[in-house]
Amino acid sequence: MKYPPVQYHDYLQLDKILEAQSRRSLELGQGAGAHDEMLFIIVHQTYELWFKQMIFELDSVMTSFGQSNVDESQMGTAVARLERIVEIQKFINGQIDILETMTPLDFLDFRDFLFPASGFQSLSWRVLETKLGLKIEQRLAFSQGPFYSYLKPAQQETIQQALAAPSLFDLTEKWLERTPFLQTDSFDFWKSYQQAVDKLLAHDRKILEQNPRLSAAELEKNLQQLDGTKKTFEALFSESEYKNLQKENYFRLSQKAIRAALLIQLYRDEPILQMPYRLIKALTDLDEHMTQWRYRHSMMAHRMLGKKIGTGGSSGTDYLKSATEKHKIFTDFFNLTTFLIPRSMIPTLPKELRRSMSYVGGSSASDR
Amino acid sequence: MKYPPVQYHDYLQLDKILEAQSRRSLELGQGAGAHDEMLFIIVHQTYELWFKQMIFELDSVMTSFGQSNVDESQMGTAVARLERIVEIQKFINGQIDILETMTPLDFLDFRDFLFPASGFQSLSWRVLETKLGLKIEQRLAFSQGPFYSYLKPAQQETIQQALAAPSLFDLTEKWLERTPFLQTDSFDFWKSYQQAVDKLLAHDRKILEQNPRLSAAELEKNLQQLDGTKKTFEALFSESEYKNLQKENYFRLSQKAIRAALLIQLYRDEPILQMPYRLIKALTDLDEHMTQWRYRHSMMAHRMLGKKIGTGGSSGTDYLKSATEKHKIFTDFFNLTTFLIPRSMIPTLPKELRRSMSYVGGSSASDR
Amino acid sequence: MKYPPVQYHDYLQLDKILEAQSRRSLELGQGAGAHDEMLFIIVHQTYELWFKQMIFELDSVMTSFGQSNVDESQMGTAVARLERIVEIQKFINGQIDILETMTPLDFLDFRDFLFPASGFQSLSWRVLETKLGLKIEQRLAFSQGPFYSYLKPAQQETIQQALAAPSLFDLTEKWLERTPFLQTDSFDFWKSYQQAVDKLLAHDRKILEQNPRLSAAELEKNLQQLDGTKKTFEALFSESEYKNLQKENYFRLSQKAIRAALLIQLYRDEPILQMPYRLIKALTDLDEHMTQWRYRHSMMAHRMLGKKIGTGGSSGTDYLKSATEKHKIFTDFFNLTTFLIPRSMIPTLPKELRRSMSYVGGSSASDR
Amino acid sequence: MKYPPVQYHDYLQLDKILEAQSRRSLELGQGAGAHDEMLFIIVHQTYELWFKQMIFELDSVMTSFGQSNVDESQMGTAVARLERIVEIQKFINGQIDILETMTPLDFLDFRDFLFPASGFQSLSWRVLETKLGLKIEQRLAFSQGPFYSYLKPAQQETIQQALAAPSLFDLTEKWLERTPFLQTDSFDFWKSYQQAVDKLLAHDRKILEQNPRLSAAELEKNLQQLDGTKKTFEALFSESEYKNLQKENYFRLSQKAIRAALLIQLYRDEPILQMPYRLIKALTDLDEHMTQWRYRHSMMAHRMLGKKIGTGGSSGTDYLKSATEKHKIFTDFFNLTTFLIPRSMIPTLPKELRRSMSYVGGSSASDR
Repeated sequence: MKYPPVQYHDYLQLDKILEAQSRRSLELGQGAGAHDEMLFIIVHQTYELWFKQMIFELDSVMTSFGQSNVDESQMGTAVARLERIVEIQKFINGQIDILETMTPLDFLDFRDFLFPASGFQSLSWRVLETKLGLKIEQRLAFSQGPFYSYLKPAQQETIQQALAAPSLFDLTEKWLERTPFLQTDSFDFWKSYQQAVDKLLAHDRKILEQNPRLSAAELEKNLQQLDGTKKTFEALFSESEYKNLQKENYFRLSQKAIRAALLIQLYRDEPILQMPYRLIKALTDLDEHMTQWRYRHSMMAHRMLGKKIGTGGSSGTDYLKSATEKHKIFTDFFNLTTFLIPRSMIPTLPKELRRSMSYVGGSSASDR
Repeated sequence: MKYPPVQYHDYLQLDKILEAQSRRSLELGQGAGAHDEMLFIIVHQTYELWFKQMIFELDSVMTSFGQSNVDESQMGTAVARLERIVEIQKFINGQIDILETMTPLDFLDFRDFLFPASGFQSLSWRVLETKLGLKIEQRLAFSQGPFYSYLKPAQQETIQQALAAPSLFDLTEKWLERTPFLQTDSFDFWKSYQQAVDKLLAHDRKILEQNPRLSAAELEKNLQQLDGTKKTFEALFSESEYKNLQKENYFRLSQKAIRAALLIQLYRDEPILQMPYRLIKALTDLDEHMTQWRYRHSMMAHRMLGKKIGTGGSSGTDYLKSATEKHKIFTDFFNLTTFLIPRSMIPTLPKELRRSMSYVGGSSASDR
Repeated sequence: MKYPPVQYHDYLQLDKILEAQSRRSLELGQGAGAHDEMLFIIVHQTYELWFKQMIFELDSVMTSFGQSNVDESQMGTAVARLERIVEIQKFINGQIDILETMTPLDFLDFRDFLFPASGFQSLSWRVLETKLGLKIEQRLAFSQGPFYSYLKPAQQETIQQALAAPSLFDLTEKWLERTPFLQTDSFDFWKSYQQAVDKLLAHDRKILEQNPRLSAAELEKNLQQLDGTKKTFEALFSESEYKNLQKENYFRLSQKAIRAALLIQLYRDEPILQMPYRLIKALTDLDEHMTQWRYRHSMMAHRMLGKKIGTGGSSGTDYLKSATEKHKIFTDFFNLTTFLIPRSMIPTLPKELRRSMSYVGGSSASDR
Repeated sequence: MKYPPVQYHDYLQLDKILEAQSRRSLELGQGAGAHDEMLFIIVHQTYELWFKQMIFELDSVMTSFGQSNVDESQMGTAVARLERIVEIQKFINGQIDILETMTPLDFLDFRDFLFPASGFQSLSWRVLETKLGLKIEQRLAFSQGPFYSYLKPAQQETIQQALAAPSLFDLTEKWLERTPFLQTDSFDFWKSYQQAVDKLLAHDRKILEQNPRLSAAELEKNLQQLDGTKKTFEALFSESEYKNLQKENYFRLSQKAIRAALLIQLYRDEPILQMPYRLIKALTDLDEHMTQWRYRHSMMAHRMLGKKIGTGGSSGTDYLKSATEKHKIFTDFFNLTTFLIPRSMIPTLPKELRRSMSYVGGSSASDR
């Protein structure tokens, strides 16, 4: 009523959408074309539509996080949009089950017509990876030029812009570094946490030493393990050793950002940290499902293309397997688990600090 | 090599696909547009792509079944394609979970811009229903004209053609009626089956009458139930009562086709019936997931649009609920379960009949 | 080390779990037993395990919400646990796909052995429904006695206790009623909202009246619709008419609770309302998936049991279909959508009120 | 009626099932126990129930395939049961999404209580792998003794029996080797196939050599690739080189079995090969989802347990990653794709051979 009327068909531009499937096996081949090429086209077109949607959500989250101060009233929406991306990922990971109703013999009916088209040429997927934070150095090298050399000029530009701009990883790091509660007048998180770790390790050592069931050899072995754990923590605490962790790609975030991520995990129940905690969880989920997607595709490639003798697979299979391991972005949040301490050992926050983490008009804020 | 080279982007016509999302809230509204309209568009575009794929598979199955004799070497493929449709259905039913990450308040941001577009205007969905076998009489009446009146002229023609041609339901019925094993020199399926039913009912009656734990009243009640069962079977056997079952929409298939469907279910292990059995199962699955799809959409409509006071819901919600019940197509295969008899009561096939149901060069065919 | 060692097998009590499958078709029947009875048992045992888990989560949420004041530091966990229930629901709804790999003929191999066992006898499901808030009056009447009459005495007691205690619905209602922001010194939500509605309706009327494209008849029809909308809103506003809405089961929550739910939806971005908003969403999802579960089971019952002639189905199918419609619990949140107003019409909150909805130590709280 | 009545609760032995959850954090710890330990227990108990079901199905398939001649009337059921296993696999792979609603910090609340219990101690999983055909040599070595050393004596015996008996892999190999159509009076599959391959490669070479667009260097490179393909095929044809393929674990099946698998793939539309083809597809799906399960668990382990600095992960994470690659069983069917040839090049079967592959009483058998 208020606006010019519109029909479903026109609104969704179905003329474009539903007439964009042209089977090359029909165009270029003889006969009726390969039946399953239609499935192949539509599976990939729906993938591309979902990639577009994921990038659209990502862009909006990055706009929120690109501000010098993330407005807390935007946190709910930002988290919900990341969770939507995860929901889309879970969904499209299941789409492989449909593609695999196509058998290798059916694929062979049109494989030759597609040369040299390949999923690696998907601009949207590359943009998605880049915007999330995959660095050019992490990528597998191509024979010549950067990884996006095979794209069209305008597409290359899109990639270059994404590479030049801060990624979601970068924005998350900056946002973590700004976390205000790491050091207050009444509380030094890092110091308290270190003390808790020391106490934990001393406690564990005592239990070991007092355990009459352990033989001398077993005690020795256990104490060595404990020393290993101790060194692991020390690497986290020391500025120079932390740099080594970064070199080995154990951590990619700055030490300050890692501290904040740890604080958020340990004190996630405080009202002001509930949404940041969900954000970290959503980024972890996102990374896991991205990896999952690559892994399933590498298996499918093996199944559909076979494997050259004497190699790890077709070049596509090889690439995908390798990318599955290397193209992780938020691994920091996986590795961070190493440094969590049991709830009973977590230092208690001073009352005024807890107060500042709660709502001005909250019902429980006053009585702490 | 053998054919002109092609790039992924061009092959998938991504220029068309990825530039077909135009948010009306952005075009016609003030400001940045409603964020979630993008999701809404892409969810529906991917639906439409999958509808196209389902119709494509359906058409190929219908071509196989439209022959005067279905070539048995095509059965494997026909079944696999129906199973693929089911796989797609399961998949897109899950897509609602993504759409429901959009909240009613977010939907309100652009709902007014869409008027009067509606999912009911989806040509592909209508074609799909029609090709499967939904009859125009089953459809809910519209205020004026046939259900497809609101479509564009060319679209109306597409629907009319689908209505005029035999549906998958029709082709399945004809194919069932041609089943050669209903009556052979050595075996009259229908007679043997009736005898088995009689024996079954007599056996059940005897068990009841000899059960000392039953009071007279309980016995009476149970015998009445048994009589009910008997009448149910008699309706299946009698030509005139069967017509009544058809009038009440209990069965839609011809009596002969129902008999064949029963034979296939009971003797599904014979090699020649293994694929026909899977076909019936696939059609049942397909109908169930179609209904499932409608049901989930009716709940989503309730959630997104609310419900006018004093009505069963918005007109959309109402329609969908009603359609969920009425728009079933292969209900015959659900109701057929009523007439299955326990495996131990199934009449044994004569040796020569079993032989004719097996492979010429089969290893186990000779020793029967 | 710190605790006595334990093995996987003993920890999970697998002796109990994996030896609790006894096929009656094997025990009581002749021969090797019905193969698919194992699937039937295990499908239902895993269901029951998940029901136990859902109740366990529900109990913990109800403990949090049973306090006179819900501690805000518990909101994150409460919401996460409800979301976990939803995750379980989605998952077990998919389990029907496994059960449906069993065909009706296979079921017939052991159906008679199960009499009169039935899924309706599941204590856990009844407890789950009751704890969520399904009232005894909503339930379909049984021939004699209350719905739990067929259960064992100790089980009946469990149900009676659940019926006597406040349900999650009740606790949610009380919690909503306590929402502090409905009326403050600077803001009367209900009054502001009514004014916004009036403005909205007046605006819509004006657009209609000024629309030159509308014929007199069309104008008339549209104005009548608008009057309908107006009356719908008036029923929400008036205390006496609201009572009617409750009588018609349009709303079940108190008027005060509904107001709070509306406030939470409209101002969900304010930090203090982000988690309450997610809570409402989780309850809506939960109700939808519960309904979904019933619907899929009613279709499966039709498929597995057939349908007596002249009835709506087997008694089980009938019951399930009817329950699908009647056993909804949080329908209020579905119907509430009717009363949402476009974001642009939502009254602005006074600065000090927004301040009180944000964090004491928040970065953006100060500059509003 | 016919049998003693039974109640749902007793039939499912719910006393055992629902009372087998004992949280060690509650028993041994102080306070209310770790909430999420219940989820942890139930997730693993439902896994174990599903493993039992999978083994139950597997055993029945293995009984069918253990006969000296697989009765063709059992093929439909055998395939359906393998497909059911795949359905269960898909389903339980999704269960990780539920487990991951538990966060690492929540896991830490009870992790110490579980020592040294571990999923590696699951007898059922080991039995499943062994029955499918995982060989003891493929498994990762344990510090001392065979991989099942940590199990209880009776459990070790179960494993040893499974190891001693023919696996599904072995039975499949024998069954493939018995395929009767490899060599008949009128047709030598292997010879015809080799001729087709030669023709294919000669055709490809000709296309290359006549392509004016190729530079000399490009031509050279392409011809080298073609030579590589040729060598790959030669390895398949030669008895001695095939042995090398087996040594490199490229193929595990005998050469004769591989030939039969290839024949089944290429002529899958012939009625007698439709079910064998589905069998191979089901085994491929099964292997893929088994691998998928391991991969998802390795990611989850990384997320839940973190990663020791300087290692690839926790020992669990390491193990799972390595097992994901090594514990594949039906890889032959993935690699076989390498040797498929386009449909247009597949040798035509002689008429009498096609006849012997069809049904005695089939409608289309006579007119070929």
